[in-house]
Amino acid sequence: MNILLVYAHPEPVSLNGSLKDFAVKRLEDAGHIVQVSDLYAMQWKATLDAADSTNRQAGVRFNPSLDSKHAFENGLQSKDIAIEQEKLLWADAVILQFPLWWFSMPAILKGWVERVYAYGFAYGVGEHSDARWGDRYGEGMLAGKRAMLVVTTGGWESHYSPRGINGPINDILFPIQHGILYYPGFDVLPPFVVYRTGKIDDAGFANTCDALGQRLDSLWQTAPMPFRRQNAGDYDIPELTLRSDIAPDASGFSVHIA
Amino acid sequence: MNILLVYAHPEPVSLNGSLKDFAVKRLEDAGHIVQVSDLYAMQWKATLDAADSTNRQAGVRFNPSLDSKHAFENGLQSKDIAIEQEKLLWADAVILQFPLWWFSMPAILKGWVERVYAYGFAYGVGEHSDARWGDRYGEGMLAGKRAMLVVTTGGWESHYSPRGINGPINDILFPIQHGILYYPGFDVLPPFVVYRTGKIDDAGFANTCDALGQRLDSLWQTAPMPFRRQNAGDYDIPELTLRSDIAPDASGFSVHIA
Repeated sequence: MNILLVYAHPEPVSLNGSLKDFAVKRLEDAGHIVQVSDLYAMQWKATLDAADSTNRQAGVRFNPSLDSKHAFENGLQSKDIAIEQEKLLWADAVILQFPLWWFSMPAILKGWVERVYAYGFAYGVGEHSDARWGDRYGEGMLAGKRAMLVVTTGGWESHYSPRGINGPINDILFPIQHGILYYPGFDVLPPFVVYRTGKIDDAGFANTCDALGQRLDSLWQTAPMPFRRQNAGDYDIPELTLRSDIAPDASGFSVHIA
Repeated sequence: MNILLVYAHPEPVSLNGSLKDFAVKRLEDAGHIVQVSDLYAMQWKATLDAADSTNRQAGVRFNPSLDSKHAFENGLQSKDIAIEQEKLLWADAVILQFPLWWFSMPAILKGWVERVYAYGFAYGVGEHSDARWGDRYGEGMLAGKRAMLVVTTGGWESHYSPRGINGPINDILFPIQHGILYYPGFDVLPPFVVYRTGKIDDAGFANTCDALGQRLDSLWQTAPMPFRRQNAGDYDIPELTLRSDIAPDASGFSVHIA
């Protein structure tokens, strides 16, 4: 299979760098073809702006969505954006690997999402009608592909537990797993999270590699998180609220998981 | 009072640009002193890397936390970082204004947080003992100051309602409001959110300005969100889980709001 690893850490000689190298080898040893987008090494442009279109005219008002749509539809995207979109279309599975900085992905990776996820590519896809609200949340250009997060954090696992002070890890990651990955169609596998990275020793690193290796070996067997499909009947359209007879007393992120 | 507005939108001729100008005028007319960090206009460097220290030696392993600590303690931070920290210390209130892109802040603003929130300034502050786990979540260098988000989004309000498909807006913003603002000590006011920005007309803009103006007028009267203080007895230390006798059957982000 074809696997894209999008990787965001500034230092190759780091836990993240070692885990990335381990993952690439493990996947290649299993016969997969791996491409790595090493965003720091690529000096990825993090900031979405008018220069993301190649024919941008000075003095014209910049509209992030409409300019993205025009550039995507007319082959006028900055080349770095088009290359990453090709990698996404090529991939059968995509892994985003990053350290959790301030409870989200590093800015360089967020900027990868913002710039690569063009209008017409990752959003603004499909028809809006009484029965559907675009091809998103389970449908879209990236449907049929799998995605998984590999995340490291200095905090303890208990700090990210259901009653931990940082909030539950799956809630912290919901805007990414549901809002960035499931939205354009990916089947999202449970995340692989490494806690308390500052204290990891050789034995801890070996255990982490074992656990990550098992997750990589079972990339095509692991059940995706059962997010609810937007256009399959669970939601009222266009309000896009969960139907009142489904989990009637519940609210929050969890109601979107069947 | 002194107010810092950190603003992240690439186009001055936009709803965000107009709301920013409105906010500055409203605050100045009320007698406040306003500084604006217009990140796009400043061409803010979004990517945290080794160049954020002024005495960085080539070939030495870069550790984001420890390098930040060393630079902060020894006056070796990149000048743009030190200037923003001075603004934060100067401010009595901080407003972060941005369009919600992929369910979080734009990369350029995330990179402002990552780079300005140095070790020793916004985290790694205070002692760790049996009774406290650093000065954070209600304590810290920015304690006593107020903060508020001003957020725009193209989606409908119902899409961000308690059972809306995107998730409740306050849960989407929790990693920012709790994890980025409350963490270093800010009292966090409820967010000001503008929905369905693509459809806003002159009347809608006037109504939005009225509502935003009222929020700005009452910046010092509005009750902060009642996040629980980490070191005031509600959490077991060092697990940092909510004490078992508080909201015993609940979990998730909401348990951290008293």
